[in-house]
Amino acid sequence: MSHSLGKIETQFFEFHDPKNPLTLSCGTALERYTLAYESYGELNADRSNAILLFHAMTGSHHAAGINTEVPGLDGRWTDELHEGWWHGFVGPGKALDTNKYCVLCANYLGGCYGSTGPASINPATGQPWGPTFPVLRMSDIVDSQVRLLDSLGIRQLHAVVGASIGGYLSQVLATRYPDRVRNVVLIGTGLDVPILQRIMNFEQITAIEFDPNFKGGNYYGGPRPDIGLALARRIAHKTFISPEALRERARHEVVSNAPPFDWYEMNSPVESYMLHQGQKFVRRFDANAYLRILDAWQWFDLLAGTGAKDLVELFSRCRNQEFLIFSIDTDVSFHPSEQAKLVQTLKNAGVNEMWITVSSDKGHDSFLLEPKLYTPHLTQVLGA
Amino acid sequence: MSHSLGKIETQFFEFHDPKNPLTLSCGTALERYTLAYESYGELNADRSNAILLFHAMTGSHHAAGINTEVPGLDGRWTDELHEGWWHGFVGPGKALDTNKYCVLCANYLGGCYGSTGPASINPATGQPWGPTFPVLRMSDIVDSQVRLLDSLGIRQLHAVVGASIGGYLSQVLATRYPDRVRNVVLIGTGLDVPILQRIMNFEQITAIEFDPNFKGGNYYGGPRPDIGLALARRIAHKTFISPEALRERARHEVVSNAPPFDWYEMNSPVESYMLHQGQKFVRRFDANAYLRILDAWQWFDLLAGTGAKDLVELFSRCRNQEFLIFSIDTDVSFHPSEQAKLVQTLKNAGVNEMWITVSSDKGHDSFLLEPKLYTPHLTQVLGA
Repeated sequence: MSHSLGKIETQFFEFHDPKNPLTLSCGTALERYTLAYESYGELNADRSNAILLFHAMTGSHHAAGINTEVPGLDGRWTDELHEGWWHGFVGPGKALDTNKYCVLCANYLGGCYGSTGPASINPATGQPWGPTFPVLRMSDIVDSQVRLLDSLGIRQLHAVVGASIGGYLSQVLATRYPDRVRNVVLIGTGLDVPILQRIMNFEQITAIEFDPNFKGGNYYGGPRPDIGLALARRIAHKTFISPEALRERARHEVVSNAPPFDWYEMNSPVESYMLHQGQKFVRRFDANAYLRILDAWQWFDLLAGTGAKDLVELFSRCRNQEFLIFSIDTDVSFHPSEQAKLVQTLKNAGVNEMWITVSSDKGHDSFLLEPKLYTPHLTQVLGA
Repeated sequence: MSHSLGKIETQFFEFHDPKNPLTLSCGTALERYTLAYESYGELNADRSNAILLFHAMTGSHHAAGINTEVPGLDGRWTDELHEGWWHGFVGPGKALDTNKYCVLCANYLGGCYGSTGPASINPATGQPWGPTFPVLRMSDIVDSQVRLLDSLGIRQLHAVVGASIGGYLSQVLATRYPDRVRNVVLIGTGLDVPILQRIMNFEQITAIEFDPNFKGGNYYGGPRPDIGLALARRIAHKTFISPEALRERARHEVVSNAPPFDWYEMNSPVESYMLHQGQKFVRRFDANAYLRILDAWQWFDLLAGTGAKDLVELFSRCRNQEFLIFSIDTDVSFHPSEQAKLVQTLKNAGVNEMWITVSSDKGHDSFLLEPKLYTPHLTQVLGA
């Protein structure tokens, strides 16, 4: 039994298989790609105790413990990433108990924390992929990680866990590879793209595309489209936090008081707080990667490529799995009504499910901040 | 008794009083300004039957009937403005019955439909004001219209009516000039700036400021900041309409299918609908005017300059008025909880009020679209 996670280092899965490349939804075949990932806990002898955790939109593979350096990220591995984003959930004796399970988390294909993405060098040209990086769908991100599981000899996951769009990926894995996972844990997610989310995602895409420094995605080596990316982050950020928590955070966060434009005088700490959120974010993220993930979000479609005629038929493939679904009562990004639709679909498909709503004043971000709200049911379902 | 409004033409109130200028909150004294306005119905002999109507953010003084031309607007008077924005509410036998009342509506000072604003020529320079146009507060817009009432010999309004931020202006008038109005009608508005609205307003300001064509507001005579203004409109537009109505409108509106960026393929009519909304809007609005009004919104403060120590003391000045407040159950821009705070404040101040919630699937925009929901109570309160 271990009492701490010990030293955490990023590992790299180097896929290279010219005979059996990763064929993406758009048709591009990748003979090579890299996934940055971390693992916590030991795989057991029959490799049956693995839990795959999908991070959310702007997260990383670094879920737990302290990791102060990931090589080759051009300054993006900022201080705020050093502690794992699910530190309160993953570790010895925690909800995802590393004394029992081997927890894996990989940076998305298309991401910017060490996995192959638009900021990576395209081996064919020796230059960053930039806008030539292939368009991605959620299924591509999942397929790329299934190759990682293959390489580790993991036939069936004990569980897949994902919050927010990590929950999209978890559902894709569960329905696309139904025999490869036993438990499916979904937090603050849904079956499709809520209309207001779709509209705000599109606003964000526009904000980045129209930054003059974006240059169609060819900005590497020059000034970065920080203005557009910061505005995109602000557009998104407000949906992650409840209005009450926003007001509270704005009160306590250290913010700049410099007016952003000549004439405009900010009159609320919420404004400088949002400005600060945007400025902080652009130091740690790549605009092209952000766009690729937003695009995959817009096109999220569980049925695509599955041959199922509807979602009930699709989920009926999951009758050997157990679903645990969490709602957050103040979630405006994925409102509890989205999980209600999901749960009803699972019921109609005859899938075992348990649905828990937690009450939080923190909104969507509760899944990052309040392990005590989720741990009892996670422990119960994972240990069953 | 008239059965139709007849021909509608814009009138112009030319204020010019060097001895008694309009002193704005920022300290600037305007010796001259113009307000474009319209009137419907006749003033009675003692001038006691006037109703002042405040338009909303991007509205105009043209509330009812057909007006196909307003001179000097550089193409902004587009087809969609030709029918008055409250046509279903104002006219003979309608809620604001022009057989009984003389209804007045003026374009905001700082606006772009004929009143003096950033796109107007500054007489001191012979050039457009642009960014040198003074910063405005809601009280300035109200004060400028009280001078119009003075010029028409209207001592006391029968009513002031406003929806959305027009409701802010109505409250400013009622509290700043309590003896000049008898009935106060407020629709989908509030006492202050809701936090999410404040955040989205700030996003919009940023989108415009960072458009390279904006050039700090000095864009007249050159390309206009259409990209930033269109994105700003999209950010706002989604809050005016309920998600269900958005989906429905997107289905029916004629939209462009052209992809907005090289690589990004839109996958929902909602996206092209929003794009279309942005593109349509920039033809009819001036970016500097939009910013001045957004700024006044951000700084809306009923107490400012009143000497009252709190809102209860302020509204206690309104005990001789009658308030009628409407909520729209699906309003996300001004949620019914905002009107609840307002009504409670009126009660605490001992002000006569009636609060009605209408049920609509249209969201905030219901106030433009569904006269039948509002007409009975409007008729009752105005006729009492």
